Amino acid sequence: MFEDRTKPRTEIKDLGEFGLIDYITGDIELTQESSEYGVGDDAAVINPSGKRILVSTDMLMEGVHFDLTYSPLKHLGYKAAVVNFSDIAAMNAVPTQITVSIALSNRFSLEAVEEFYVGLKLACKAYNVDIVGGDTTSSKAGLAISITVIGLIDEQDIVYRNGAKEGDLICVSGDLGAAYAGLLILEREKSVFSANPEMQPELEGSDYVLERQLKPEARVDIIKILKDSGIKPNAMMDVSDGLASEVKHICKQSKLGAAIYEDKLPIDQKTWDAARAFNMDPTMFALNGGDDYELLFTVPQSDFEKLKDIPEVSIIGYTTDKESGINLITKNNVSTPLEAQGWDGFDIKVNKENND
Amino acid sequence: MFEDRTKPRTEIKDLGEFGLIDYITGDIELTQESSEYGVGDDAAVINPSGKRILVSTDMLMEGVHFDLTYSPLKHLGYKAAVVNFSDIAAMNAVPTQITVSIALSNRFSLEAVEEFYVGLKLACKAYNVDIVGGDTTSSKAGLAISITVIGLIDEQDIVYRNGAKEGDLICVSGDLGAAYAGLLILEREKSVFSANPEMQPELEGSDYVLERQLKPEARVDIIKILKDSGIKPNAMMDVSDGLASEVKHICKQSKLGAAIYEDKLPIDQKTWDAARAFNMDPTMFALNGGDDYELLFTVPQSDFEKLKDIPEVSIIGYTTDKESGINLITKNNVSTPLEAQGWDGFDIKVNKENND
Repeated sequence: MFEDRTKPRTEIKDLGEFGLIDYITGDIELTQESSEYGVGDDAAVINPSGKRILVSTDMLMEGVHFDLTYSPLKHLGYKAAVVNFSDIAAMNAVPTQITVSIALSNRFSLEAVEEFYVGLKLACKAYNVDIVGGDTTSSKAGLAISITVIGLIDEQDIVYRNGAKEGDLICVSGDLGAAYAGLLILEREKSVFSANPEMQPELEGSDYVLERQLKPEARVDIIKILKDSGIKPNAMMDVSDGLASEVKHICKQSKLGAAIYEDKLPIDQKTWDAARAFNMDPTMFALNGGDDYELLFTVPQSDFEKLKDIPEVSIIGYTTDKESGINLITKNNVSTPLEAQGWDGFDIKVNKENND
Repeated sequence: MFEDRTKPRTEIKDLGEFGLIDYITGDIELTQESSEYGVGDDAAVINPSGKRILVSTDMLMEGVHFDLTYSPLKHLGYKAAVVNFSDIAAMNAVPTQITVSIALSNRFSLEAVEEFYVGLKLACKAYNVDIVGGDTTSSKAGLAISITVIGLIDEQDIVYRNGAKEGDLICVSGDLGAAYAGLLILEREKSVFSANPEMQPELEGSDYVLERQLKPEARVDIIKILKDSGIKPNAMMDVSDGLASEVKHICKQSKLGAAIYEDKLPIDQKTWDAARAFNMDPTMFALNGGDDYELLFTVPQSDFEKLKDIPEVSIIGYTTDKESGINLITKNNVSTPLEAQGWDGFDIKVNKENND
């Protein structure tokens, strides 16, 4: 939908492999003190200065994790970087370096690669992350992206998924479900466009939910806010598959149950409006939509005073003993197993993240 | 050619994403002291204990880097790990951890994934490398593999490509060109098989060159030998694209020229035999074949005495000033620019490695 055929097109093969690498990496500067040597040798060199190293990796495949019909390559580059940054934030750290591998079919021109890298570099600049290596290769079909992210952290600051304690407050940053609302709108307009290419996509007024889907942010700001407030979560992870799935992960690894209050789920008005337009339940968007990249974490109840005035954080429930199970307390005050919230036909998943 | 249709087939979708991850990662044990936390959270945690961290990444795409007609998945898993280990060896270090991402179309069964991981885990066991994370996802077409490798090293031990000095001895480990010979044989038998599926592949007597192509090794043993001999190379890289290309990389980055002696190139008798069978020049196999994963390095002439009794290392030339260019001294004692050795039709490349 967003493709511009008036742009120039340079074939990648005309540059050759090393020409392409020079072109992409020519303007890469290292800004992290820990980046000793970046692109240009067999491996990058990082100086951790006594800290622990966090490593996480994500693979994004065309047609599975993204659809170039409505994902501009620049946005895709930005998102590919940010979803990795989010994994480091989820350990209570800030990302410092990434390596970037892309495989492209000859459908893609140099300009397309450049657009992807513009977005990627924009994200790296915004988050102060260095690109220290990668691989650029060809593909028989489609675009494949693999990013590995590194973060450095003091040992005592690391927050795992398995550290939640019974009676912890369960918290989430930002709001949930908007990215899924954005995805539904994009899928709807794609169907309309496929049926009639003369139709212009109806995207007006949906800026917020579209941006949440196409250009998400990693909540490294929350990591800083928590630190400044003297809060160290007991357990944390990022919300990529949907809140329900992530709550279960933390409960499973921490051997606990949980009670989540439906009326405490942070849902933006724009997400409500979109859900209503599709005649769907916004709670389901928040619980199962995914792709939010917010942080889900638990803190001891004693941190309540420190927490309550942070506007970007919502307390949505508490952890219980394992035997009580994982439950949703609905707006009608009915407790129902969170597992039971399965939704037939809820099968659109653009980003099944799984580092584990 | 090697496919066994009598084996059981389990669909990956029957396990689900998390089931697949549990299945693959269930038997992974961490053996490196530096691996503090592996699979199971948003990121792995590595304790570098004051060392520098080396990071390198490689992406392998079906139909570009490997052909499943003749690459058994087990071998592919082994090779995918080893080519990454080789990048760390090329910095004078030993690999310690990897993350592994694979994207698979529904053409692949659980048994296929398992076979890949059997080979991968075999390599990790042989090289004492821990699998600490990854991503498993689906693909619209074909198999994509992305591996990131980490190595730890004392700062003073790092060897870059750019450290060669004028008058250094240029050395290479093992022998060259065999992997390319293996590739040509596999490609020939594939053509025969395509034309007539009843024909059995003629692979007898080609074990050595086939193994060099399908199951290469990373020369971490050479790193140890050099250290034990008190040798620290001035510059080093691994031979993945072919010796000529790698010599040029080191010369370019070190701002030097080079003289390489054709009669000093280490070529195994089996590679000679294969080259003759194809009526081709074995020197070209060694210079441009690629996929050897041997180590190319330069040492000061003063190290000659330490070097001369290491059977696994050949001295193939020396570095010169930049203005003298990069030359091959042929068997007839003619000096000819190494650039001029281009070979029309020499376009089969199964592994275009490029961390830079």
